[in-house]
Amino acid sequence: MLLRDPVHGLIAFKSEVESVVPRLLDCREVQRLRRIRALGLASLAYPGGEHSRFAHAIGSAHVMRRYLDRVATLAEDVPPHDRIDDEHAMIALAAALLHDLGHGPYSHTFEAVIPGMPRHELWTSRILLDPDTEVHRALAAIDPTMPAKVDRLIHGESEIRHLARAVSGTFDVDRCDYLLRDSYMTGVRYGTLDLDWLLASLRLYVPEGQSAAYLAVDGEKGLTAVESFFLARLYMYRQVYLHKAVRSAEVILRALVRRLCELGPQPGTPPAMEKLLRGETLTTGEYLDMDDRTLETALYDYCGSKDSVLAGLAARLRHRRLFKSLRLRPEADSKTVQSRLDAVLAAADVGPAYLGVVDRVEQDVYRDDAALVVISSSGRREQLIDVSPVLRGLSRERIVQHRAIFPPEIRSEVRAALADFR
Amino acid sequence: MLLRDPVHGLIAFKSEVESVVPRLLDCREVQRLRRIRALGLASLAYPGGEHSRFAHAIGSAHVMRRYLDRVATLAEDVPPHDRIDDEHAMIALAAALLHDLGHGPYSHTFEAVIPGMPRHELWTSRILLDPDTEVHRALAAIDPTMPAKVDRLIHGESEIRHLARAVSGTFDVDRCDYLLRDSYMTGVRYGTLDLDWLLASLRLYVPEGQSAAYLAVDGEKGLTAVESFFLARLYMYRQVYLHKAVRSAEVILRALVRRLCELGPQPGTPPAMEKLLRGETLTTGEYLDMDDRTLETALYDYCGSKDSVLAGLAARLRHRRLFKSLRLRPEADSKTVQSRLDAVLAAADVGPAYLGVVDRVEQDVYRDDAALVVISSSGRREQLIDVSPVLRGLSRERIVQHRAIFPPEIRSEVRAALADFR
Amino acid sequence: MLLRDPVHGLIAFKSEVESVVPRLLDCREVQRLRRIRALGLASLAYPGGEHSRFAHAIGSAHVMRRYLDRVATLAEDVPPHDRIDDEHAMIALAAALLHDLGHGPYSHTFEAVIPGMPRHELWTSRILLDPDTEVHRALAAIDPTMPAKVDRLIHGESEIRHLARAVSGTFDVDRCDYLLRDSYMTGVRYGTLDLDWLLASLRLYVPEGQSAAYLAVDGEKGLTAVESFFLARLYMYRQVYLHKAVRSAEVILRALVRRLCELGPQPGTPPAMEKLLRGETLTTGEYLDMDDRTLETALYDYCGSKDSVLAGLAARLRHRRLFKSLRLRPEADSKTVQSRLDAVLAAADVGPAYLGVVDRVEQDVYRDDAALVVISSSGRREQLIDVSPVLRGLSRERIVQHRAIFPPEIRSEVRAALADFR
Amino acid sequence: MLLRDPVHGLIAFKSEVESVVPRLLDCREVQRLRRIRALGLASLAYPGGEHSRFAHAIGSAHVMRRYLDRVATLAEDVPPHDRIDDEHAMIALAAALLHDLGHGPYSHTFEAVIPGMPRHELWTSRILLDPDTEVHRALAAIDPTMPAKVDRLIHGESEIRHLARAVSGTFDVDRCDYLLRDSYMTGVRYGTLDLDWLLASLRLYVPEGQSAAYLAVDGEKGLTAVESFFLARLYMYRQVYLHKAVRSAEVILRALVRRLCELGPQPGTPPAMEKLLRGETLTTGEYLDMDDRTLETALYDYCGSKDSVLAGLAARLRHRRLFKSLRLRPEADSKTVQSRLDAVLAAADVGPAYLGVVDRVEQDVYRDDAALVVISSSGRREQLIDVSPVLRGLSRERIVQHRAIFPPEIRSEVRAALADFR
Repeated sequence: MLLRDPVHGLIAFKSEVESVVPRLLDCREVQRLRRIRALGLASLAYPGGEHSRFAHAIGSAHVMRRYLDRVATLAEDVPPHDRIDDEHAMIALAAALLHDLGHGPYSHTFEAVIPGMPRHELWTSRILLDPDTEVHRALAAIDPTMPAKVDRLIHGESEIRHLARAVSGTFDVDRCDYLLRDSYMTGVRYGTLDLDWLLASLRLYVPEGQSAAYLAVDGEKGLTAVESFFLARLYMYRQVYLHKAVRSAEVILRALVRRLCELGPQPGTPPAMEKLLRGETLTTGEYLDMDDRTLETALYDYCGSKDSVLAGLAARLRHRRLFKSLRLRPEADSKTVQSRLDAVLAAADVGPAYLGVVDRVEQDVYRDDAALVVISSSGRREQLIDVSPVLRGLSRERIVQHRAIFPPEIRSEVRAALADFR
Repeated sequence: MLLRDPVHGLIAFKSEVESVVPRLLDCREVQRLRRIRALGLASLAYPGGEHSRFAHAIGSAHVMRRYLDRVATLAEDVPPHDRIDDEHAMIALAAALLHDLGHGPYSHTFEAVIPGMPRHELWTSRILLDPDTEVHRALAAIDPTMPAKVDRLIHGESEIRHLARAVSGTFDVDRCDYLLRDSYMTGVRYGTLDLDWLLASLRLYVPEGQSAAYLAVDGEKGLTAVESFFLARLYMYRQVYLHKAVRSAEVILRALVRRLCELGPQPGTPPAMEKLLRGETLTTGEYLDMDDRTLETALYDYCGSKDSVLAGLAARLRHRRLFKSLRLRPEADSKTVQSRLDAVLAAADVGPAYLGVVDRVEQDVYRDDAALVVISSSGRREQLIDVSPVLRGLSRERIVQHRAIFPPEIRSEVRAALADFR
Repeated sequence: MLLRDPVHGLIAFKSEVESVVPRLLDCREVQRLRRIRALGLASLAYPGGEHSRFAHAIGSAHVMRRYLDRVATLAEDVPPHDRIDDEHAMIALAAALLHDLGHGPYSHTFEAVIPGMPRHELWTSRILLDPDTEVHRALAAIDPTMPAKVDRLIHGESEIRHLARAVSGTFDVDRCDYLLRDSYMTGVRYGTLDLDWLLASLRLYVPEGQSAAYLAVDGEKGLTAVESFFLARLYMYRQVYLHKAVRSAEVILRALVRRLCELGPQPGTPPAMEKLLRGETLTTGEYLDMDDRTLETALYDYCGSKDSVLAGLAARLRHRRLFKSLRLRPEADSKTVQSRLDAVLAAADVGPAYLGVVDRVEQDVYRDDAALVVISSSGRREQLIDVSPVLRGLSRERIVQHRAIFPPEIRSEVRAALADFR
Repeated sequence: MLLRDPVHGLIAFKSEVESVVPRLLDCREVQRLRRIRALGLASLAYPGGEHSRFAHAIGSAHVMRRYLDRVATLAEDVPPHDRIDDEHAMIALAAALLHDLGHGPYSHTFEAVIPGMPRHELWTSRILLDPDTEVHRALAAIDPTMPAKVDRLIHGESEIRHLARAVSGTFDVDRCDYLLRDSYMTGVRYGTLDLDWLLASLRLYVPEGQSAAYLAVDGEKGLTAVESFFLARLYMYRQVYLHKAVRSAEVILRALVRRLCELGPQPGTPPAMEKLLRGETLTTGEYLDMDDRTLETALYDYCGSKDSVLAGLAARLRHRRLFKSLRLRPEADSKTVQSRLDAVLAAADVGPAYLGVVDRVEQDVYRDDAALVVISSSGRREQLIDVSPVLRGLSRERIVQHRAIFPPEIRSEVRAALADFR
């Protein structure tokens, strides 16, 4: 299997072990990922960001293959039980490919807006462990214990500690692929994820008195690559994932879901979504039937709803008529802002109170990961934060995005009402 | 309006004249292009190729803006009536942005598989000229004659000849954007479209005894850029647009449409498609309601059809279980191949005869365009083919893709039956 | 004038005003920059980094042209006396092109190792103001006051404050070009200098009660681009300009110069360098005769010197046999390290004491520039450090590079002697 | 050994076998390549093209490493005697690294302008086989037969046929690196050399009745990559290697050498060059002492010559005051052109007749290589020209560059005299 990928160039899975990837790619649950946009609503902010989870799944498996190649060259540094044999390599490739299987329509957006919705990681497990899915059968055909092993690894559990971290850790293969891919597709090129150099500067070491190998970074060669990884992540959050258009669209979608709950069953709501809104549990099959198309079809139908609030919100998403947002100072009191916003909305009579939202996102710029150490040229192990002035500086700061989000009709009133918070 | 585009970098429409672009972008018919994949089925071959017509529309308008900037610097070379005033600039930007308005689900695929379907260019006109569409109203608000003027220009008609050619000609802004974009997104980087250099080497000239300015290329500076444009196009056809997976998927979709015609109305067929299959004409509104989602929803429903042929074909497209293809020699006799293929299908009893298809595409590698001339350093005008040994060489060749496409179940039988044609 | 540049793509200087660039390019003092490596000794660390000051000079003029285009669109924001007329545009382009005229062999290296050497900025002035140079004559032919005006602007003096800052300030055109170019050529791609976005987010404003326009950045659009610029600079320092091989080579060159001073006149020393070593002043013509070739020829000759120290140091540079370096903790006491290093050298008898050097470089990660402000979406002016958590975090840190540099023969002794400082 | 290269990204030579590369890199004859510009005079046309043979040597060794990795995966397709063992791998890496050892000042330029000069390939042999050179000693230290084996392989001789071709054949590692590097450095990006895909589509096969393995290309996967390689080469010739400024500068250098021969010994001529001009043979040591600096120093000295012709030619090269060139029709009769040029020169009295030169370069656009075959999906072996319409078309054409090159003083006279040939 030889594939051209815009991000990684040529991707190949050729060996016996690697053949697990093409076999899983043929499963319908993996093909379904073609119908789920990786960036959810962010394509409303970046027209290029329309790629699916499918391309990301392949990319993650490719990064895992490169990780396995790299740790094979480090085998001598670790005890035999921490080396990757063929079975573990196969599990690792499968885990990388399948880690996102449980995403619903518009990826993270969906679970964020449906109240009480199980998280996609849980659905991933259900799909893997359900004997009726094609991925389950493909894995079980290799070995009946495979589905459970892959599932455990996806959730960061493995007897090989460093492998668990490569699937679910600070620098996992998932992040490596999505940061590169989302940056490539949106055209947002801040921060550099230098995958070649990260892999080349990776080390494995066994702390004294322990038996499991840990991931580490060569401090002479790899420090800049590691810092840049964190900066790349920071910038993708700021520029893309938390872009004001994304937050605005999510506020609208959340309001729409709330309206649906208020109204009770509406024409156009797909049965599976109806069940979700009632708080019922879906079968794996019902869940898998849902993809971006499901949501888009519902939105299309709601545009014709008799309820003008529902119809209006649906039309906003369908035709990209987003709410406006107003940047607030980090220290502005959210409660006061919210009550002023409520007052403006009430006075203007443009719809339910929940159309005006105070959106506050607060994030550490960098949080040190005790499990990821740096090995200096003299062999000492140190925390990243102790050797990197850049990360140390960043670790003391928080990024706060504070915005009021509201329908455009009341823009001037909101600007006036919140003038002292800007 | 400032936008980040992965292909062109920063895109800005800022002047009064350019403001037509953001105004049109807000129209729902333009927003609809977000729901239509530019490459249709090609994302089945290139996981990166999932971008929509929307990003391409903006990119085309951007290339047009650059074209207008360039010809403004050439104004002295042409008579006043061939210079671009503000009105024509606005029409040109609108035409570039809106040229693809009429595409249906999966872009070209849709019109290729529905028998008797009007081509997308016709739908573009209908949408532009229909007083109920938002794009019509946005244009008419500027000037009531605008919709018709934009429509004419999209169809290559304008009193300014070179502008007509820039919208619809050998090197039009549409091609410039899609070759760059499709290459970027699929990762297929053969051929180079050097837009900067193409624009810099563009000339306008008025042939003796005529009054209209023609496009030309500076032979000293631009020949390589022009040759590379044609090579880029050639390679995108070979590697992407005519990729075997694309052809295979199209054969399946075509067979599915044929099956639908045989079966008569089926549950799941959207009403608009039903009308199309009956050969009826859609209203603009009905047509605009269709997008990729419409087709995907129908495929989902057909997967549960009682007709096993229909269900099978739909499942193939939904889960990417494509037909196989076998490369044939260019000179193999298509009729003989087809009859052998029919015989194999009949013997194997895997479905209707139209599941086995001989697919023959023949293309000139390069066809000279008499209207595009080269101006040598001594001021002579020459045909491209006379000054470029590369294009002259290519003009004598044809590319033939000849394949048998058929269900995988009969692969070995087909290989045996067609052994002498490979 | 149309030129292909690997960093900026197509570079064009076409208007009457811009024609100053091709005219100056023909001057021998500008052509001389082809013989001066921009990165000095850094090509010993990065084989790709062999580009000259000449390409950088053209690139700087190109960035200036883009700056002038940008500020032309902002003309309405500033009083008439701060707009750029043709004369100032010409001066600005000339200043950008000529700002590095005074560099000697190996760029910064040369002035760093010759004791008492006037800095290259001073030589730039001398060359510009010397009526015998071709650049002087080319500028004076336009207007006799031009050489002096260009010289003043290069030194950051102009009645147009923002222009002075664009030539010599936090983000000047020089830095924009060299960060991009050095990164491209060495392959070190950490940090992103997003020139398009920086220019697009540039603003001019006149503080209340003042009359001169200042540069500012649009806080909504430009903050990430500005932060990334500073990160790009940080990473180029760490990865390239202060690379251990560069420092090691500079230590060797400095030792060689010291040896020359000890020995008195040596065969092979070019007369101009001889004068410099004696502390005499060169004429402009003598200075201009020196370029990389001068130094390389001297090194070649010194390789055959009877003085084994001189010959050894020259051979080290010529054949890249660098001194070793040992990373020291930032807090290690430099004096103690130096005395231990001296002791090792003395014991090993490998040469004069100055062959062992403690190299300590300390730099602010980010220092706020009061003159560069951010304009928020509500029109407030703020300091970068107040709106950017990233820069605020970085401003609290310093980067310290602390190394012992010494001949490889004594490596194990040095490692032992300095074990407690590593 | 881990290195950052702008073209290939990260370059690593880590295994025991690969350690031959860092050992050879330390040799002074390899370090000398830092002082020889790869593109010779082409940096006069492309300011970016200033890179040295040194970076290219490392890049070639890197491509060889990738070739060896690839053929290792194909080992089963070939008889044991055609597999690459450790010794052959070491020889191959050394050959790739050292193949350009014998280049003189300005690479190809030097041997092109000195009459009777042995070609650089011969000097490479002399340097390798001379027991006094460091490369000889480094190789002999591994095994006394190594220098001769490496020399044989560099000249395309090896008992492993496919390896010989990888060092010196249609697609050798030298070409792969220089096409990529020269394109990257000059910014001329026409044609695509898709190294990943070329390597992935490489096959080895043993023709029936023979015992040696041949290189082949997978026709399904690799045809476009192969065609693009040839197009990349074509474009680099046209845009860079045969650029009019390069040809003009070479004409000047050739005239300068001729003048030197006419004048007899001149101050400033380095002794080695003096011997070469007298037709004497240099020792290896004398030859190795020459590099770009040698030529530049001579030019500097000649600028002060009493012979005005010599001084003028040297100043032209030093200060880039090139001769003009006039494009002629391919079919123009060179002899007639030359005699008219001579007449103009004689009438204008600007110098010896050899200052006016008719420069005619004729090249096949593509010449088929019988030894490089394509393997179709059905296993048939075919010639490239039979399966590629693009290459077939190109193979019928020739590229002719026909120019008159002459001092600028006589430009208008030459244009008049040659008007009918343009």
